[in-house]
Amino acid sequence: MSRQSNRTTDSKKMNSELFTLTYGALVTQLCKDYENDEEVNKQLDKMGYNIGVRLIEDFLARSSVGRCHDFRETADVIAKVAFKMYLGVTPSVTNWSPAGDEFSLILESNPLVDFVELPDNHSNLVYSSLLCGVLKGALEMVQMAVDVRFAQDTLRGDNVTEIRMKFIKRIEENVPAGDE
Amino acid sequence: MSRQSNRTTDSKKMNSELFTLTYGALVTQLCKDYENDEEVNKQLDKMGYNIGVRLIEDFLARSSVGRCHDFRETADVIAKVAFKMYLGVTPSVTNWSPAGDEFSLILESNPLVDFVELPDNHSNLVYSSLLCGVLKGALEMVQMAVDVRFAQDTLRGDNVTEIRMKFIKRIEENVPAGDE
Repeated sequence: MSRQSNRTTDSKKMNSELFTLTYGALVTQLCKDYENDEEVNKQLDKMGYNIGVRLIEDFLARSSVGRCHDFRETADVIAKVAFKMYLGVTPSVTNWSPAGDEFSLILESNPLVDFVELPDNHSNLVYSSLLCGVLKGALEMVQMAVDVRFAQDTLRGDNVTEIRMKFIKRIEENVPAGDE
Repeated sequence: MSRQSNRTTDSKKMNSELFTLTYGALVTQLCKDYENDEEVNKQLDKMGYNIGVRLIEDFLARSSVGRCHDFRETADVIAKVAFKMYLGVTPSVTNWSPAGDEFSLILESNPLVDFVELPDNHSNLVYSSLLCGVLKGALEMVQMAVDVRFAQDTLRGDNVTEIRMKFIKRIEENVPAGDE
């Protein structure tokens, strides 16, 4: 399914519930398709990555956010602009590592898991893995390699959902030979 | 994945793009899983039905819409309240049959198909079939059996997307013996 070049840029604001239930259908389908939870997590992450790679263009066009100067600015843009825009929630940014290369997004409420309870036989399922992939894919397109994982999850009985993000490296842009 | 009894009822407004791309991932996965487009359409319809059956409760709680007195009122509520709420668009209601048992929802813009082009080898795919299922499932829960299908689709080169809805019958509520 490739991108249409002539799509309109008007944005549609919708309630999150249809998205939540559709995401549930996707996870359920993958649980049927793959043998174990780890494989489902991996597939969700991969799908998310492909989504992030495409979503970043939409994000940059809509948000008029410019290039971030450091990882702290990136963290703020992700929490206050991107999450607000695409999920309707604003996580708090916290738990910075002393080196400033790691932080957590704390979601009081995760729209993906409304209506959801993990069945007992899926104890290793990281239900919202798609989000990790989206963040990785989107940031890679703006030359940042990051590691993203769930550190806490309300679905597993934690009080909040915590997404841990770690800066790995800046990806060099491909500069055509002779342009430097 | 069963419904949590303690979920909050605050609604989150989100832009549609993450939903659109996630739906694309679901359709792509089903195209891998099933042999032909007809089977994919059927699965999307079935998933949509299960979503509709659950979404109706959320809809009734949020919209404070009461019982519709006729199919025309139902049509208006679907177009002006439900589509607006869950997809961020308001289709027009038109092409009524003389008997008043059939109408069309015309969508100038279908959020599900932003970014999408049908590949040539999926000419029988009814990409947005999930919506038909959602409408059938939701209406069945308020005692209306309807038939829903796509009559026009911008993905297939039509100028608009047209969803045709036909009233089949009112479903009798199960009244416990002796209650009548």
